[in-house]
Amino acid sequence: MSKLQIEVCFSPLLYDKYHSDSNVVVVCDILRATTSICTALGNGATEVIPIRSVEEARKYKEQGYMLAGEREGITLDFADFGNSPFNFTPERVAGKPIAYSTTNGTKAVFLGKDSKGVVIGAFINIAAVAHYLRQQRQNVLVLCAGWKGKFCLEDTLFAGALAETLMADGLYTTECDSAHAALDLWSIAKTDLMGYVQKMAQRERLRAKGLDDVLDYCFTIDTSSVVPVLVENKLVPIRL
Amino acid sequence: MSKLQIEVCFSPLLYDKYHSDSNVVVVCDILRATTSICTALGNGATEVIPIRSVEEARKYKEQGYMLAGEREGITLDFADFGNSPFNFTPERVAGKPIAYSTTNGTKAVFLGKDSKGVVIGAFINIAAVAHYLRQQRQNVLVLCAGWKGKFCLEDTLFAGALAETLMADGLYTTECDSAHAALDLWSIAKTDLMGYVQKMAQRERLRAKGLDDVLDYCFTIDTSSVVPVLVENKLVPIRL
Repeated sequence: MSKLQIEVCFSPLLYDKYHSDSNVVVVCDILRATTSICTALGNGATEVIPIRSVEEARKYKEQGYMLAGEREGITLDFADFGNSPFNFTPERVAGKPIAYSTTNGTKAVFLGKDSKGVVIGAFINIAAVAHYLRQQRQNVLVLCAGWKGKFCLEDTLFAGALAETLMADGLYTTECDSAHAALDLWSIAKTDLMGYVQKMAQRERLRAKGLDDVLDYCFTIDTSSVVPVLVENKLVPIRL
Repeated sequence: MSKLQIEVCFSPLLYDKYHSDSNVVVVCDILRATTSICTALGNGATEVIPIRSVEEARKYKEQGYMLAGEREGITLDFADFGNSPFNFTPERVAGKPIAYSTTNGTKAVFLGKDSKGVVIGAFINIAAVAHYLRQQRQNVLVLCAGWKGKFCLEDTLFAGALAETLMADGLYTTECDSAHAALDLWSIAKTDLMGYVQKMAQRERLRAKGLDDVLDYCFTIDTSSVVPVLVENKLVPIRL
């Protein structure tokens, strides 16, 4: 059997160039949306409904949904939660659906809708995501949410780590330059991940707003076994 | 004095997100357009006129210009040259203007038109480009031509090598994630550059078409002291 392919797309603005009907799309926005979504579902939220616009977010709130919403790191004034994973405690989210709107992350989820499937990835659930993907036996495209369309290091490192994991047992391979770059950057960063984090632009943006308390949590590997998967426009938890 | 900034844009499709009026833009399309443009001007061509469309290329040809034109590596049937730097020998180009249209490279040149300046970079003239940029004392954006909008390794490595050179004496710094990634990838690749080339998708595309005779030439550093600069829609040689 020929090997499955893994590709990496560094920005939602490039997605058209990487899209294929035969891909499962793994969306990552490590700081902080996809880490938070994994946390919310891991702590018992029943589903996360990704939302594109602030107006739509307001409508969900008016309908009685718990709402997580931020723009550029700042919580929307009518939202229940911002974008920090620490917001989504079991006490607040267990048994409830959550509507979720962020600057970069939730928008990327919709791009993958025409593919074989959409999965939410983060360092905290990377082994679970890899296990789920191996079960699917489809080509994989890692879609980095980036920052306002720009390349970002944290999502790229996740892509590299996931590619390394998938390629380790020979089921997957890659002929994609972005994937090779992600693999090589991960090979540099993984020996001192928190040291590497210091050079990330997003690390500095979060620090300037006092939101960098999440860094250790967001770069800790495999604390969650939940895989959020898009089903009928909602992210639902699959537990492995 | 605060340091000058160097940023890197991995695809023309992302250029809007990196554009600034205060940048000098360095366009690179290592395999093969910008290497060929440096070669043509180094071998005595008076100017290189970048052209976007095949139709426009035909008009220049009808007006008597020497024409270099390719799409996806294949020479346009009415062109004098393809996209190989080996075409542009002194015998063929000295004293002549050349109209130039390629899949990725010449299009990227036009994107930089609203900036402080547009410079053509390649491994063969990297020290000359760095010298020219230090004289300009402006922020620098390296614009990678990529491949059909996708990220590519060869242009990224050039960006990393140029950033390393500019940052070596402390005049430049970076807070750009793409530039950090390019620097790190270059740090891996530079110890065995021709070994690293093996994993590039473009290396395989060229090989499949029998066009990979140019690899050694395109990855040899500092064989040219010519810096092509855009002046009134034409690339003219500055010799340092």
